Order: sequence, then structure tokens, then C-alpha cells
Amino acid sequence: MKVLVIGAAGMVGRKLVAALLAAGQINDKAISSLTLADVVEPSGLGIDIAHTVIATDLSEEGAAASLIAERPDMIFHLAAIVSGEAEADFEKGYRINLDGTRALLESIRLASQSEPYCPRLVFTSSIAVFGEPLPAVIGDEFQQTPLTSYGTQKAICELLLSDYSRRGFVDGVGIRLPTIAVRPGKPNKAASGFFSGIIREPLAGLEAVLPVADTVRHWFASPRAAVGFLLHGAAMDTAQLGSQRNLSMPGLAVTVGEQIAALERVAGPKAVALIRREPDAVIADMVAGWPKAFEAKRARSMGFVGDASFDEIIEIHIADELSGKVAL
Amino acid sequence: MKVLVIGAAGMVGRKLVAALLAAGQINDKAISSLTLADVVEPSGLGIDIAHTVIATDLSEEGAAASLIAERPDMIFHLAAIVSGEAEADFEKGYRINLDGTRALLESIRLASQSEPYCPRLVFTSSIAVFGEPLPAVIGDEFQQTPLTSYGTQKAICELLLSDYSRRGFVDGVGIRLPTIAVRPGKPNKAASGFFSGIIREPLAGLEAVLPVADTVRHWFASPRAAVGFLLHGAAMDTAQLGSQRNLSMPGLAVTVGEQIAALERVAGPKAVALIRREPDAVIADMVAGWPKAFEAKRARSMGFVGDASFDEIIEIHIADELSGKVAL
Repeated sequence: MKVLVIGAAGMVGRKLVAALLAAGQINDKAISSLTLADVVEPSGLGIDIAHTVIATDLSEEGAAASLIAERPDMIFHLAAIVSGEAEADFEKGYRINLDGTRALLESIRLASQSEPYCPRLVFTSSIAVFGEPLPAVIGDEFQQTPLTSYGTQKAICELLLSDYSRRGFVDGVGIRLPTIAVRPGKPNKAASGFFSGIIREPLAGLEAVLPVADTVRHWFASPRAAVGFLLHGAAMDTAQLGSQRNLSMPGLAVTVGEQIAALERVAGPKAVALIRREPDAVIADMVAGWPKAFEAKRARSMGFVGDASFDEIIEIHIADELSGKVAL
Repeated sequence: MKVLVIGAAGMVGRKLVAALLAAGQINDKAISSLTLADVVEPSGLGIDIAHTVIATDLSEEGAAASLIAERPDMIFHLAAIVSGEAEADFEKGYRINLDGTRALLESIRLASQSEPYCPRLVFTSSIAVFGEPLPAVIGDEFQQTPLTSYGTQKAICELLLSDYSRRGFVDGVGIRLPTIAVRPGKPNKAASGFFSGIIREPLAGLEAVLPVADTVRHWFASPRAAVGFLLHGAAMDTAQLGSQRNLSMPGLAVTVGEQIAALERVAGPKAVALIRREPDAVIADMVAGWPKAFEAKRARSMGFVGDASFDEIIEIHIADELSGKVAL
């Protein structure tokens, strides 16, 4: 089985590649080749099977067709401009997140015109396709009314994925990822950054800023769960999806207060003491419009499994990112 | 007020133009110029105010920018490849229905970069943005999961309309039209054609074929109501729309049996006798997946008014298309 990962240099992309290598197969079919693409050349992945690394921008003329030339059987498409950048740079967001994905779908469709070709395409969408007004718990049939250009681009790609799948051009699975926590690495400027920061920074012995109230509820999955969703999307029987190819993933609905309580249980009061409350009305307003919880019945019924508890999410971070050690 | 109508040569477009001319204004602002665009030059409209007629294909390079050059204050965008053609010709459907509309939105956005510009854009969407599985009555928060490429293209344009409006590039209103009945003219090959045919043909003394059961329920608006929706979309205060710019219009949920009963009340048993039942499993299967009824609470609360009864829909057809006379 030939596998292509687009967006392989990103945080989830790298972990996905590691998991694919560890498994060596998808549904008992050995991975015979692995092509890793991103705007920067994915590196330092420690890969010991035949693979190709490509630095490419999907939205550039010919880039998608070139990635499809080898007719990969399995495509993971994770590449995207993140929410903040897509909002700041309107044209770039549409070019990468919409036109790039559409170019990929078109390349697959056009490739099928010379000889039969219908690869599985696992696409990472986002809970950003939902926007206020929202119910406390969002059902699987709730409308997509995004409040960001990023969310709009993801919602459009979901529609394209379903239509291209319905027409038989591709075998698509759209995975609406919850907010990923604990996101490893440095703090970034994303408005959602604090959800990870208030766990990650204290565990590293550093102060973290909390800009919202403890009562704020949000929807989470660990990086490990996110990779699990993508692998299950690759392995699942898509007949059960019918014409609705996009799924809200099972996550954990947790308040900031519950996050902090979990941190205390896992790492003690010294960790919690490193969280500095610094209310920020702008961030609080943005976050107020975000989804708080999902039913995700459909995804659960199809075998997608989320994290068991926020304690577990913290423990996954300590195990996978901190070699099991907390700096306190 | 400068008004631009794109898709002015179509059935609803022509009636909209006639209504605009009859009113002469929108919200007490006199219509100072009227530009009518379509792929064929709109003709025979009997217009006696200053107007321009343009034959153009929105999806062609420069076409949208050229339509926007005069900076119309009010734009009605009705142009589209219909459902059957968009399904038969995948590339043409996406080119006209998606790329054409996106080119229009982009031209408006780019025009606003030199000096402030944010026209009202009334866009005709469709109940085809909804697809099975559907509830018996579709609420305003139900998801858009279209089962045709046409519905997909409309749903994508709805998302773009909301995002461009949220960003302040355009003041968009998306009007999800019910199935229009009674559609004037000759029978066409649209799978939905019989809903109009079983009324229109008997009123003209001709036989009509009914391919589905009398129990089939569907969602209707008269051409006159459709024009009323577009005019109200042009005149309404869009502040009440918030970030959700698209509205399911109020229609009538009527079964085929109720349509026929209305026909008998309005035109007598001779008309009904002209309906020939000729079950068609393919059409019946298609129609089974279509929306049957909508709540349309949001649109009603904002002043959109649908038809009062199917009797009235038939009477509108007799008045507007048959000069008040039935050929029986």
C-alpha cells in the first residue's frame, strides 16, 4: 500500500507518520512506500522504510498532480494554514486551505479518467466549522455556520469531500478534530493556546497565563487520540458513512477548572501554583463563541475512540513529550 | 440606486426585473440604473428606464470585475446551471455555480480595496443544500448535507456569502428557495418537473404525467412569492441576520394529492382527469430523498412571507401566465 501524508511536518503529521511506521500496515496491507509532503521538507522523522520527502505547496500549479502521479492508495491530508493566519491573511487562507484541497481532489478525479483510481482520503477538518449560536452539546445533525475564514474553508472542503466521494472520485473521510491538548512545543499566539499552556508550561516548571474564567468549557482530544482518529479513518469501512463523509470526533468536554483539578491530581499543587490568572476580555469573547461539547454519537458508533479523562490527556503529554518526567 | 441582476433572463430573473420596474425603488431609494446580465442577452423585458443589457459568463476571466466596475449598490445573483445539468456536467457545474459566484465575491472584495464598497448581494440558494437523512420538518439549525453537485455548489456559496459578509466585504443575504410551482413554460427534463406539470398542463388543456404517488410531500413557493423573497432580501435590515446570512424561505408543504385536490377546487374535475398516473421508480427514488417541509421560523420572523395555500399558487399561475383564463 502506497501512503501519502500531506502536512507531514506538522505536529499531528509527525506523530501520524511515527504511528504509521510503528504499525507498518493499514488493515493488514503492508505499507510499501511512504511519501511525506509539506511546505517545508519533513525531517528528523527517523524513518527506516523506503520513503520520499517533498517540499511542496498544494495550491501551486501542478503540485497536487505531482503528488498524485504515483497513485497513492491512502492519502492523509493534514496541510492547512491555521485559524489565526487564515483570519489575518484572507487570500492566503483561501489559497492554501480551499484551493489547495480542491486541487488535490481535482488531481485525484483527473487521474481516474485515464484508468480506475479511487484512493482513501482522510481529511482533517475542525470543530471550527461550527459557530454561535450553538447548543450546549452539539448533535451530529447540527448546521455548520463557521465564524472564521478558517472554519469556512474547512466546511467548504467537507462539502467537496462528500460530493467527490458521492461521485466515486475519491473515498473520503473527514475528521473534525477537537482542540488538541496538550499541544507540545512553545506557546504560540493562537487564542486557544492557553488550553494547552496551562498544562504544558507548569509541567515544565514555567509560569502559564490563563486569560479566561475557570468555568469556560471546551472540547479536547490528545495528540495520541487525534492520530488514532486518522488511523481509524484510514482503516474503517466507509460504506457505513453513506453520503455524509464528515464526522465530529469524540472528545472530552472539560472546563478550565476541571483541567486545573486534573493537573493538580497528576502533578500536584506546585504545578497549579504556576498558573497566573490574567483575564483578557478579547480572548474571553472569542472563546465564548466556540463549541463546548459534542454528542459525537455517529463517530463513536463507527469505532472512533477518544480520551478517557483529562488526567489521561495530561499523562499522555508527560509520557510522549516529557519522557515521563515532570520538572517540579 | 444602481441595481445589477445576474441571471436576468431566467424565469425568476425576468419576473424580478418586472417587479423592480413596477416598484421603481428599493426602500424609498429610486432605482437610477438597472444592469441586466445573463449568458444570453436578456430581451423582451419592455423596460422604459435607463438600463444596460449584458451577455456574460460570470466564470470567465474578468467578467465579474466588469459587472462590478460601475459599483452597483444592489446585486441580485440568480445565475446558475440547474441541478440536472450540474450533475451531468461536473466541471461546468463547479465552474458556473461555484467559481462564477466566487469570482463575483472576489470582484466585490477587490473593488473595496481602492475605496469603500459593500453592496447588498441577494443570492438565490436552494433547498437542494439539504439531503437525506432528513427529519419530516427541517429546522433552521439543521445541517447542510447535499446529495447533488448542484446542492454542494449552493451550500459552498452560502458559506462564502457568510464569510465575505462577516469580513465586511459584502452585505449578503442567501435565499433558499423552495421548489417553484407552478413553473411556466414547456415541460422540461428536471426530475421535479411533474410538480408543476400536473397543474400547468391540465390548465392548458393538455395531459400531464404523474410519476410518483399521491402521498409524496414537497415544499413549494409560487414564482410571485419567490420574487417577493428576493425583494424583501434586498430591503431588509441585515443586522438581524448576524453572521448567519442564509435563510430557508417559508413555503407550503403539500402532498401531490393535496395539489390535485387544489386543482380540482380551482379548475374542476376535467382538469384533474388530464393527469395520467405513470409510476417511475427512478424518479420516485430521487424524490424520496428530497426535503418535505421546513419550519422556516427565522425567515418568517424577519418578514419573509410565503404563499397562503396551494389554491392561491394555482390562481397566481392563472393570473400571471394565462391572463386569468383556463383552457377547459
